[in-house]
Amino acid sequence: MSAYAALEARFRRLGLLGGAAAMLHWDWATMMPPGGAGPRAAQLAELALIRHETLTDAAVCDLLDEAESETDTLDAWQRANLARMWRRWREAAALPGDLVQALSEASSQCEMVWREARPASDFPAFADAFAPLLGLAREKAAALGAALDCAPYDGLIESYEPGLRAATIDPLFDDLAGFLPEFLGRVRETQAGWGAPPPLGAATEAQQALARRLMAALGFDFDHGRLDISLHPFCGGSAGDIRITTRYDEADALSGLMGVLHETGHALYEAGLPEAWRYQPVGQAGGMALHESQSLLIEMQACRSRPFMRFLAPLLGEHLGGGGGAADAEALYRRAIRVEPGYIRVDADEVTYPAHIMLRYRLERALIAGDLAVGEIPGAWAEIHESLLGLRPENDTQGCLQDIHWSVGEIGYFPSYTIGALMAAQFFDAAARDEPDLWPAIERGDFAPLLGWLRANVHALASRHQGPALLERATGAPLGTAVFKAHLQRRYLG
Amino acid sequence: MSAYAALEARFRRLGLLGGAAAMLHWDWATMMPPGGAGPRAAQLAELALIRHETLTDAAVCDLLDEAESETDTLDAWQRANLARMWRRWREAAALPGDLVQALSEASSQCEMVWREARPASDFPAFADAFAPLLGLAREKAAALGAALDCAPYDGLIESYEPGLRAATIDPLFDDLAGFLPEFLGRVRETQAGWGAPPPLGAATEAQQALARRLMAALGFDFDHGRLDISLHPFCGGSAGDIRITTRYDEADALSGLMGVLHETGHALYEAGLPEAWRYQPVGQAGGMALHESQSLLIEMQACRSRPFMRFLAPLLGEHLGGGGGAADAEALYRRAIRVEPGYIRVDADEVTYPAHIMLRYRLERALIAGDLAVGEIPGAWAEIHESLLGLRPENDTQGCLQDIHWSVGEIGYFPSYTIGALMAAQFFDAAARDEPDLWPAIERGDFAPLLGWLRANVHALASRHQGPALLERATGAPLGTAVFKAHLQRRYLG
Repeated sequence: MSAYAALEARFRRLGLLGGAAAMLHWDWATMMPPGGAGPRAAQLAELALIRHETLTDAAVCDLLDEAESETDTLDAWQRANLARMWRRWREAAALPGDLVQALSEASSQCEMVWREARPASDFPAFADAFAPLLGLAREKAAALGAALDCAPYDGLIESYEPGLRAATIDPLFDDLAGFLPEFLGRVRETQAGWGAPPPLGAATEAQQALARRLMAALGFDFDHGRLDISLHPFCGGSAGDIRITTRYDEADALSGLMGVLHETGHALYEAGLPEAWRYQPVGQAGGMALHESQSLLIEMQACRSRPFMRFLAPLLGEHLGGGGGAADAEALYRRAIRVEPGYIRVDADEVTYPAHIMLRYRLERALIAGDLAVGEIPGAWAEIHESLLGLRPENDTQGCLQDIHWSVGEIGYFPSYTIGALMAAQFFDAAARDEPDLWPAIERGDFAPLLGWLRANVHALASRHQGPALLERATGAPLGTAVFKAHLQRRYLG
Repeated sequence: MSAYAALEARFRRLGLLGGAAAMLHWDWATMMPPGGAGPRAAQLAELALIRHETLTDAAVCDLLDEAESETDTLDAWQRANLARMWRRWREAAALPGDLVQALSEASSQCEMVWREARPASDFPAFADAFAPLLGLAREKAAALGAALDCAPYDGLIESYEPGLRAATIDPLFDDLAGFLPEFLGRVRETQAGWGAPPPLGAATEAQQALARRLMAALGFDFDHGRLDISLHPFCGGSAGDIRITTRYDEADALSGLMGVLHETGHALYEAGLPEAWRYQPVGQAGGMALHESQSLLIEMQACRSRPFMRFLAPLLGEHLGGGGGAADAEALYRRAIRVEPGYIRVDADEVTYPAHIMLRYRLERALIAGDLAVGEIPGAWAEIHESLLGLRPENDTQGCLQDIHWSVGEIGYFPSYTIGALMAAQFFDAAARDEPDLWPAIERGDFAPLLGWLRANVHALASRHQGPALLERATGAPLGTAVFKAHLQRRYLG
């Protein structure tokens, strides 16, 4: 057996264990009774440990070295797979076992404190638990930066979107920061006379039935997946069995449906990955920005549109009753594109969302660089929030304590959301250029042209290329803000 | 670290992986979309392989040897745990890897053939797939017998109920075979004038709500478990999160409820295992006979009784409507203890069930001994079935093809069902002797006295003692038929 083949066998085990763990996570969020949490955490920790042992086993490094001498016997996918294996090994090997362990414990501790500190707006309590976690995260950043030959904060970004760098993000975010405030003012003027949207309530069961109908229209295969309910919507499961969740608001049917469409975008990506590479690193979805681009492409680009609302309006009437106002396509469209600055990121619309991200990006970079102390977060948060959105949070519950990310050590993740939004606009624009029937088909509820383009240009390529390179290959242009801004202009001022 | 402590760490991993696999099995049977089967099978196979590697690692044998020299530092539970570790290691080490692999493949193959052969009554097709599997099972029996120092068929029984031997089973089954035919005739005479039971239909949702109510009364903790629906009822999940399933017959509410009560018996056993030993071999439930004793104790001993039906009758009326006839305790009791010889084991009542087991026991012993050829099964089956139950199957669908067990290589399992029934009678009899309030409490829907006795005398002891020894310790008497026969006399002729 060649060294490369031996590596494939080892990474197949990692892939299978990862799938098993993902299923146990799904069960945790959807099915598990509360008393199951302790034993489940122990099961998941053991699976994580076995994966770490399997990946950092001394033999893996030897095999990776040996496989380098076999590269002329490998095809392009295999070579890309070998590169992804190296990447995973370098990341795992870069972090000493005691740092991984300390991070895991500090994260658990900080998350527990955060769950109580958030509703109480108790920043001092949070800060006490976050300070040691931040120290460890800075150690991690330094170790990753050294191993991956980049700056410490870039090392963290790498964990979420391989190939992305702060040097790429900075000019994009600077450009958006220059564009959005004035644009937001114009959108607000345009929407000023719209008045409150009419009620659009419906029972959970009816919403769920319609959600399944829309998922099927988008191309979700219920023989290979499920839709369930959880507190926080997510896309989980494992290859061949993709599971998305949502929550329903019985007073506002559109919010739950839009959540389902968003998660369906993630799910279609997972379902479209190449089966032949199912358990190998190269066969996995790209980073978080690329993943978010697929959900935002479905939700924001395709579905919060007039054509989609023309398709949706009669279905809404049919499934949810109500008829009349609720089922009017133009009223639905206005409801779907309403813009309103607020405090909470997860409730933000497409126009104000980047401000929430840029705020967090600035702060977490400064935290990792050592330019911002933990105690300075609330003040810095309020100041930047006001400068970007014209609102100053009244407390930390609606300010720096709102997100779970930092409390579990996820630093470097936030930029993915807005980079994903830029990518989504670029992918969709390219698809609409290549498929002239794209919009008419969406209006008919036919997503085959869109899905076909995504399958060929994104999904089937898995991790064959890194995110920014894949984007350029699929669209002919590098990552930028122009297409996203043009999309905003058309949608909100057009 | 002592060798014993090192072993505990390794077996903790085995316990956690076993729990993870059990959850993935539960999901398969209850939640998984059909397309998930392939990837799930691969995940489970990988987990099984990792467990096998972990258990048969050369270091484990060395540690076991070393731990033997530490026994004077160990307490009684630790010594019992060490003995259970040895037992697991011996069983795993006894079977060469290629035999395990061949058995797994032959089982998958034979099960697939069986799924088609059963409805078609196509014994020749089944025989072609079963003959090679039987050959491998005989090899396995020989290897286990050699490793565990017992006869080959005893080696197979050992996999299901450690400590049980054919030499123990034979006189018990001979005694039952002498008792039951005449007893059955008398029961049939007694019940001859009962007429058909009145209808007792109800919607699935109503049955499920009542089932949960009864589970809670029995002591099932929904913070640590669930009730769901699957094609075949089972008790699964893992420590701290016990999951039972059932199926509902909308035309007969009692059948689904009795299924739930049966599985609740299994679940209460699992939930009562000592938390301190949760992931160690000594902390696991005993064998299949002991496990079945706990489900039969709840279903057959406690619940198919007049006192329970007096508790159930008003609840039935309340949850399922119907009132009158359906909610009459005596009518319910008669419905619950109706005896009627038939062909299908899983549909059999308490009186005829042992005949189904004795039939299978005789045949599988002869198959393993080489005294019966595969082609002779249908004839032998029909002959014994007729001699024990007075009915001759008209085809193999209602004869030797009805069970899945042999098709997946489970030989040596069947006696557990009837040994479990004997144990259930003995445990319950001892509990009723020790707790004078047992029956009045059941009639009030108070299962605390029964559960308290079971916790103290069975559940909390886990695998501290082997099944037959545990029974004798808890009841003061060895495994026998007298208490079971006395129970049958009282219930069916009393």
